[in-house]
Amino acid sequence: MDCDKLSPSTGFVAKLRKAWTISDSMLCVGIDPDPSRFPSPLKGRSDALFAFCTSIADATAPFACAFKPQIAYFASLGAEDCLEALMDYLRQRHPGIPTILDAKRGDIGSTAEHYAREAFERYKADAVTVSPYMGTDSIAPYLTYKDRGVIALCRTSNPGGADLQGLEVQIPDADWQAFPAGAQPALRSQLPLYEWVALLAAHRWNRDAQMALVVGATYPLELARVRELAPDLPLLVPGIGAQGGDVAAAVRAGRDDLGWGMMLNSSRAILYASDGEDYAEAAARVAKETADLIRQAAGGETDHAHPISRGRRDTG
Amino acid sequence: MDCDKLSPSTGFVAKLRKAWTISDSMLCVGIDPDPSRFPSPLKGRSDALFAFCTSIADATAPFACAFKPQIAYFASLGAEDCLEALMDYLRQRHPGIPTILDAKRGDIGSTAEHYAREAFERYKADAVTVSPYMGTDSIAPYLTYKDRGVIALCRTSNPGGADLQGLEVQIPDADWQAFPAGAQPALRSQLPLYEWVALLAAHRWNRDAQMALVVGATYPLELARVRELAPDLPLLVPGIGAQGGDVAAAVRAGRDDLGWGMMLNSSRAILYASDGEDYAEAAARVAKETADLIRQAAGGETDHAHPISRGRRDTG
Repeated sequence: MDCDKLSPSTGFVAKLRKAWTISDSMLCVGIDPDPSRFPSPLKGRSDALFAFCTSIADATAPFACAFKPQIAYFASLGAEDCLEALMDYLRQRHPGIPTILDAKRGDIGSTAEHYAREAFERYKADAVTVSPYMGTDSIAPYLTYKDRGVIALCRTSNPGGADLQGLEVQIPDADWQAFPAGAQPALRSQLPLYEWVALLAAHRWNRDAQMALVVGATYPLELARVRELAPDLPLLVPGIGAQGGDVAAAVRAGRDDLGWGMMLNSSRAILYASDGEDYAEAAARVAKETADLIRQAAGGETDHAHPISRGRRDTG
Repeated sequence: MDCDKLSPSTGFVAKLRKAWTISDSMLCVGIDPDPSRFPSPLKGRSDALFAFCTSIADATAPFACAFKPQIAYFASLGAEDCLEALMDYLRQRHPGIPTILDAKRGDIGSTAEHYAREAFERYKADAVTVSPYMGTDSIAPYLTYKDRGVIALCRTSNPGGADLQGLEVQIPDADWQAFPAGAQPALRSQLPLYEWVALLAAHRWNRDAQMALVVGATYPLELARVRELAPDLPLLVPGIGAQGGDVAAAVRAGRDDLGWGMMLNSSRAILYASDGEDYAEAAARVAKETADLIRQAAGGETDHAHPISRGRRDTG
């Protein structure tokens, strides 16, 4: 095993590994601000959007291994300047917690270069989510930013995900030959599309250990299969919280050999835990409860009781 | 054939049909502004971005059936306000030419609703490009805007497109049964992923005739196959111009029964036709030449010589 490759000392994956051990948490706090659901003390305030996002971030930071602002919520409001300010704030106030810009971009050539510039230069995100539908040359422009992460959609948490991702696909022999023998599933001839994406991400796209995958908590069997095919890749796992995925089942299916490996995302359940004066405290409480639930599920057979020593071992 | 459905009197597809016949053109002008390539008279001007885009639009409008601003070029510059102003300008100055926001968005539930709001309310686009990777419930939120178009990626113009889109997929019987018998290809058991996307778009997602598809000019055989599976859907066809796709082959493969049906996109070859004072005239000249080339290729066996009568017949 090439430890230098799997535990680089800089970059998104290294930052995430440190954040797992320091926070002793695999909770990712999704920042999807919807002004119609803002707590009463913020209603009518001109700085409500920024105040809400930063209050939530500050309150939940002790329990978070990552922050994930969703760009659509800012774009629909014409509030890109607020998103820029939020990303700056997160980097300065919470420098140990990686930021993921959830944008699910997907395009090619010079257009993809512009999207990469948007995510990594304008918003200075540690990682960005991308769609794999346009293939290898749509992923490549993001990978030129060697210290950043690229998180490809694999098996998403929605029922419609199966429309494409669940279809059995036939992989041409020539494509298989590019993979190391160990990466070839026993049944070579056919596999679901999302498994093929997991293999592309874990091998073809992961030369510099920058890749991660989105796999929904709502499909634990698929999550386990992705973990098998991509043993070292971090998994961003939506679908717990408001979407109802079973935390314990997801953690058992998706953790890596060391008992880490996941960013379990919760957005609405944390953001809108209370609509009163206590909204930040309520968010912190739900974040803590969720992180505890994740830790209990992960800790059963692992070494999670000693986060600091784990931290030294993993990142040293 | 349900003519009301295929030729609705309002909405994106109706506006596009009118634009085809009034302009007698199937050229889509892609607006991908890159300041490093701006013509010398605009260098250093604070309004260069807006001036460039509007000059190109005004110069090429007589030869265009659609305008397609690519949002990444604005987002990487932090110039969403300029894109808003450009979309307003296009709607006011060129009301007959539909606008396509090229954003390739793909997400689910409330996030997709926010992306739809961004495209259709903030930018007021007539249509938006989307990725199909997340399936039916990722397309649905856009379709609630009944007068707007949704253009799904199908077979893209880049080589890496084949990594996923070209894979042979196995369609479960239950999924086939939802399609009309005529839509089922003779060889039911297996087909490339992009053909399945074409079938989903043409049937499951097209109840209100809002769908179109992105198919690259660089793969004319695939283009012909998509036209066969989706005989009535407009096709947005990148890959001519700077990407080198053969215009005549693409038009022969992708036109519909009436000799229309395509938006052949050219961006860089038009935008950067000259870097001198004459950049707008040069853009117009290349746009006219491209539209002429498309018309010649389309006109061989059709009725293109009488655009006005066609216009009345198609849209009345």
